[in-house]
Amino acid sequence: MNYNQCWLNYNPVNNYEDKELLTQVTVLEDKEKSCGIIVQNAVKELTNAVKGMLSIDLKVSSTKEQLDKADCGVVLSLSSNLSVNNIVSLHNLSDEGYILKQAEKRIYIIGKTEKGILYGVFDLIRRVAAGKSIKNLDVLENPKNPLRMLNHWDNMDGSIERGYSGNSFFFKNEEVIVDDRTLDYARIIASIGINGVVINNVNVRKEASELITDKYLDKLVKMAKIYAGYGIKLFVSANFAAPIEIGGLTSADPLDEGVINYWKECVKHVYEAIPDFGGFLIKADSEGRPGPFTYQRTHADGANVLARALKPFGGILVWRCFVYNCQQDWRDYKIDRARAAYDNFIGLDGTFEDNVILQIKNGPMDFQVREPVSPLFGGLKKTNQMLEVQIAQEYTGQQKHVCYLIPMWKEILKFNSYAKPEGAKVVDIVSGKEYGQINCGMAAVTNTGNDYNWTGHDLSAANLYGFGRLSWNTDLTSEEIAKEWIMQTFPYNEKVVKTVFDMLMGSWLTYEKYTSPLGIGWMVNPNNHYGPNVDGYEYDKWGTYHRADRNGMGVDRTKNGTGYASQYNEPNASMYENRETCPEELLLFFHYIRYDYKLKSGKTLIQHIYDTHFEGVEDVEKMVYNWKCLEGLIPEDIYQRVSERLQIQLESSKEWRDRINTYFYRKSGVEDDKNRKIYY
Amino acid sequence: MNYNQCWLNYNPVNNYEDKELLTQVTVLEDKEKSCGIIVQNAVKELTNAVKGMLSIDLKVSSTKEQLDKADCGVVLSLSSNLSVNNIVSLHNLSDEGYILKQAEKRIYIIGKTEKGILYGVFDLIRRVAAGKSIKNLDVLENPKNPLRMLNHWDNMDGSIERGYSGNSFFFKNEEVIVDDRTLDYARIIASIGINGVVINNVNVRKEASELITDKYLDKLVKMAKIYAGYGIKLFVSANFAAPIEIGGLTSADPLDEGVINYWKECVKHVYEAIPDFGGFLIKADSEGRPGPFTYQRTHADGANVLARALKPFGGILVWRCFVYNCQQDWRDYKIDRARAAYDNFIGLDGTFEDNVILQIKNGPMDFQVREPVSPLFGGLKKTNQMLEVQIAQEYTGQQKHVCYLIPMWKEILKFNSYAKPEGAKVVDIVSGKEYGQINCGMAAVTNTGNDYNWTGHDLSAANLYGFGRLSWNTDLTSEEIAKEWIMQTFPYNEKVVKTVFDMLMGSWLTYEKYTSPLGIGWMVNPNNHYGPNVDGYEYDKWGTYHRADRNGMGVDRTKNGTGYASQYNEPNASMYENRETCPEELLLFFHYIRYDYKLKSGKTLIQHIYDTHFEGVEDVEKMVYNWKCLEGLIPEDIYQRVSERLQIQLESSKEWRDRINTYFYRKSGVEDDKNRKIYY
Repeated sequence: MNYNQCWLNYNPVNNYEDKELLTQVTVLEDKEKSCGIIVQNAVKELTNAVKGMLSIDLKVSSTKEQLDKADCGVVLSLSSNLSVNNIVSLHNLSDEGYILKQAEKRIYIIGKTEKGILYGVFDLIRRVAAGKSIKNLDVLENPKNPLRMLNHWDNMDGSIERGYSGNSFFFKNEEVIVDDRTLDYARIIASIGINGVVINNVNVRKEASELITDKYLDKLVKMAKIYAGYGIKLFVSANFAAPIEIGGLTSADPLDEGVINYWKECVKHVYEAIPDFGGFLIKADSEGRPGPFTYQRTHADGANVLARALKPFGGILVWRCFVYNCQQDWRDYKIDRARAAYDNFIGLDGTFEDNVILQIKNGPMDFQVREPVSPLFGGLKKTNQMLEVQIAQEYTGQQKHVCYLIPMWKEILKFNSYAKPEGAKVVDIVSGKEYGQINCGMAAVTNTGNDYNWTGHDLSAANLYGFGRLSWNTDLTSEEIAKEWIMQTFPYNEKVVKTVFDMLMGSWLTYEKYTSPLGIGWMVNPNNHYGPNVDGYEYDKWGTYHRADRNGMGVDRTKNGTGYASQYNEPNASMYENRETCPEELLLFFHYIRYDYKLKSGKTLIQHIYDTHFEGVEDVEKMVYNWKCLEGLIPEDIYQRVSERLQIQLESSKEWRDRINTYFYRKSGVEDDKNRKIYY
Repeated sequence: MNYNQCWLNYNPVNNYEDKELLTQVTVLEDKEKSCGIIVQNAVKELTNAVKGMLSIDLKVSSTKEQLDKADCGVVLSLSSNLSVNNIVSLHNLSDEGYILKQAEKRIYIIGKTEKGILYGVFDLIRRVAAGKSIKNLDVLENPKNPLRMLNHWDNMDGSIERGYSGNSFFFKNEEVIVDDRTLDYARIIASIGINGVVINNVNVRKEASELITDKYLDKLVKMAKIYAGYGIKLFVSANFAAPIEIGGLTSADPLDEGVINYWKECVKHVYEAIPDFGGFLIKADSEGRPGPFTYQRTHADGANVLARALKPFGGILVWRCFVYNCQQDWRDYKIDRARAAYDNFIGLDGTFEDNVILQIKNGPMDFQVREPVSPLFGGLKKTNQMLEVQIAQEYTGQQKHVCYLIPMWKEILKFNSYAKPEGAKVVDIVSGKEYGQINCGMAAVTNTGNDYNWTGHDLSAANLYGFGRLSWNTDLTSEEIAKEWIMQTFPYNEKVVKTVFDMLMGSWLTYEKYTSPLGIGWMVNPNNHYGPNVDGYEYDKWGTYHRADRNGMGVDRTKNGTGYASQYNEPNASMYENRETCPEELLLFFHYIRYDYKLKSGKTLIQHIYDTHFEGVEDVEKMVYNWKCLEGLIPEDIYQRVSERLQIQLESSKEWRDRINTYFYRKSGVEDDKNRKIYY
């Protein structure tokens, strides 16, 4: 096999104490029907896992609703089976939720649906992998988010936009691939609760526009079937201009009868082939993609025409809010890209069909190491919303640097938008709780490719794992997730756990230290977005500026500047507006600040820049050292791969340190307090 | 025809007074043999030209050495014909030279070789095209430079490296093209005295390595034959690693017997097919190309192995001196790319075979708008040298901007290297005069492609024309060349002549004004080298830095810095070393200068930067205006093409002005004296 199983490697768990509960697995079937493919897959997974971890060959049996026949071991059952009613309370169980309950020599895994059972099985496996006791289990877990999606930016030629882990395992030479890896990919992402996957790039070009036509539908049917066995719905990025490019129409105007019919027919055709098809993701009027603006229509017009076509089949239309002027003149200080998503969408609140979801990037710019939360969260009140984050480390080291992103996402989720005076956190807006919505959740641009280890950097798998787990249960802490992932990924060793845990937990702040300071972002090489280039985007058309001069730097986004801060609800607007109350990690995002400005630490801005950049490299040096101490304690191939990447990270962090320090030294003329080496 | 004839369009010349001298053309042939293809082509050209310019159908005749039979009109003759001996003095005529002599009703065009006759015919045509009298002609012209070469950077896939005029007319889809355009190209460049052409990119990759093998030799034979008809020798860029890549050897070590034999056989094979083959051009150990360094051999070892193989056939080996460390760390202030060519080659002076020519770029960097002259000129004293300039406007507006380069090349040629105490100008070094060498001359990276007008920008043809003319006669002034070109290119109109002349003559300084100041160079976008990007190369590996900080900018190349200035002979070394005597247009190339430093104009450096950048744009605005005034006076297609490009130049010059001014305003904090708009 030319790939591993990520956290489903099922390493041996030594001296596990609750082995006796894992002797057999019994499927309690409905009187009327046998269990479906999902439960079969769950049984297979459990058998496989227990064999690997505990060297136990589980006995597998099934019985028609007769609980007494399952005298011990794991019992899988739908909650509709009457016989489990008196064992557990099903009251709060949601469609995808599960119950884990240990009673006597049995462990019950009960779901309202087969998906619930599958998720319960993966939970049980996680506990065993972590060496946790499964005695006295009494758990009811429902997913916090209805939709937990991955967006792949895979192109049909096999390349991946912003992919850092090899090529696509979905496409090659304009063909769709369905093979063993398709199945294993489904297992891996189902294990962390993912229930939707968009397989192709949001920039839909050439053949990709035809994915939903007969040219490729056969293959998609096969793929969707595999996914269905793991509770995952297949989504496709569609081309807004498909009525023209594929349909042969002269227009893609969403209010045009022909266009309306085109989409109706197209969708109908897809659902005839794939009855549980998820729906479409659309990037429109953004970075050169076609969209409703061409026809003087709104984004709502554009989204609704597709949504109405999808609605009869239960399909969902996800519409991205990443819309801005990417032909900005750097000399124009009035335009502010940060304002764009809000300005484009806030006026449309309440005008979208109820099967439309607006997919909103976490910040107003583009996945920088630090951004404020998008003011659309808390702005939109009558529109389904989905949070979009990026697992792929486009701006956070491109899977050459360690950068564990869960702490960032946790901060975003707990951000209080004050959409209601009493508070309204992002986590509750995207889960649907705040406004009683059901079509919402979390999406992420994912980081997988056909590399042996799926994610290029072995430690980057923690971000994929973490996204899934966090989107399932937003209450999990970054620490819990990190530990879970480590325990499942590496053969158990306390030193390994501690070292990798520390590496992960510190990595985001470390990356931030040696890259762009205090929320200003960018300073990367244009196009590839890797490595330092302070002025790389400074005079470009992309709306991404730091405005550094000899006295200071930062973008004035207060009322005196672009007014972006006013897009927030109070008291956030005032908090950002005032540089004294603005969180310092975002100071340069909201304010132009002099180099001699004193931060709360007592340091000047310029000294803070020097200090953090020296510290960042020191942090990486520590990581390199600590990782070296693990030699022999973790599998050799992983050790080598990570060692190589750490060396790259070390060199790159030095380059960042020196370029940034020199740039600002040349501009400010201020010497380093501590007389460290700054090139002139 | 999908292309025009450049300056060989032969527009009507009205009211030409000396028509009566152009009634017939007689070829005076040797007793033994008929005239060859070159003279036939010359006759064809003259007939064609006279028909176009004067609507005269020339009578064509030939006669065996009997001058009296040619009773009037143009008489073409080799100087070996005894019958011309008493008419003109042949004493000073060189192999490629010609005599133009009017006597009675005849105009004699006499050459020692057929090539001389051809060049004489083109001279006569030029005079007529310019409306000049051809009465009382008494001219003897010998070319100043033995070799007058064009280097094409054409790739076999049809692309052209640094090509701004469409695709290659030599290659397409890895095939060699020989068609009508091949012939017309030969006519066009022969008309300006070019006698050697390298048809493929110096970066020899893939199929291009096989150009000199049987795979392509048939086609090259055809091409070489066409060229031979116009006195042009075919050269090919060869791959130093060919013994490995094509020959199947394990080494390309120039001292290896197998390698020596490989080249011998290879060259022999080429000459069997093309007896007048010119030789090879080699880029070795430069920017990733293979070379002798791999085998711890010198450039002399590398060049000589090829030269020895070529020598028996009269072939020439041209070896480029563009060798430098292109993996420099910007943090390393000791390395100076400007030093590299001199440091690499000076120690090898006198060790090259006499059919080796070192091809030396005009400056030590890379075709910037302003550079000092390479110190290799005046350094090397026992080595054949050829000056390399770039007609392609890689760093001078890429044939979107008007930039007439002859004034730059004139400055280079007249530079006194002080190789001898009494003086030694570049012009005399490369012509062979200074050291009595015969293998030397001028080469240029050319600017043609398969665009309709050959050079993208119609006015860029003046650079191609000018290079040829200048390399033939280095005494010509920029003004003379510009006028010649205009007169031959446009139907005669005084306003057109004056306007285009002014546009050309001011264009280089205009371009310099709005781009990088005072010799510092670069400040362009990486890779494509177009448009402003002050820090574009500042922290890169290419060794191209401006070192600007809040106090000043420039590279210290004095003894306190990189010591580059010391590579020059005295008094040049001292002149550059001292910032008071350093020519101001090169001030920042040699010195780090504070923004408040007073230039000889009385202006500070920073004010000079602001002023020149505003002026540069104003100059372009004037050009745009002046060109508009020519509407209707010049052919509509040319008018339109140039208008479009002028608009691009105007926008680009504003972008340059604003980026440069803003960049230095932000760094220096100094306001513009005149309060013009500088973005902050």
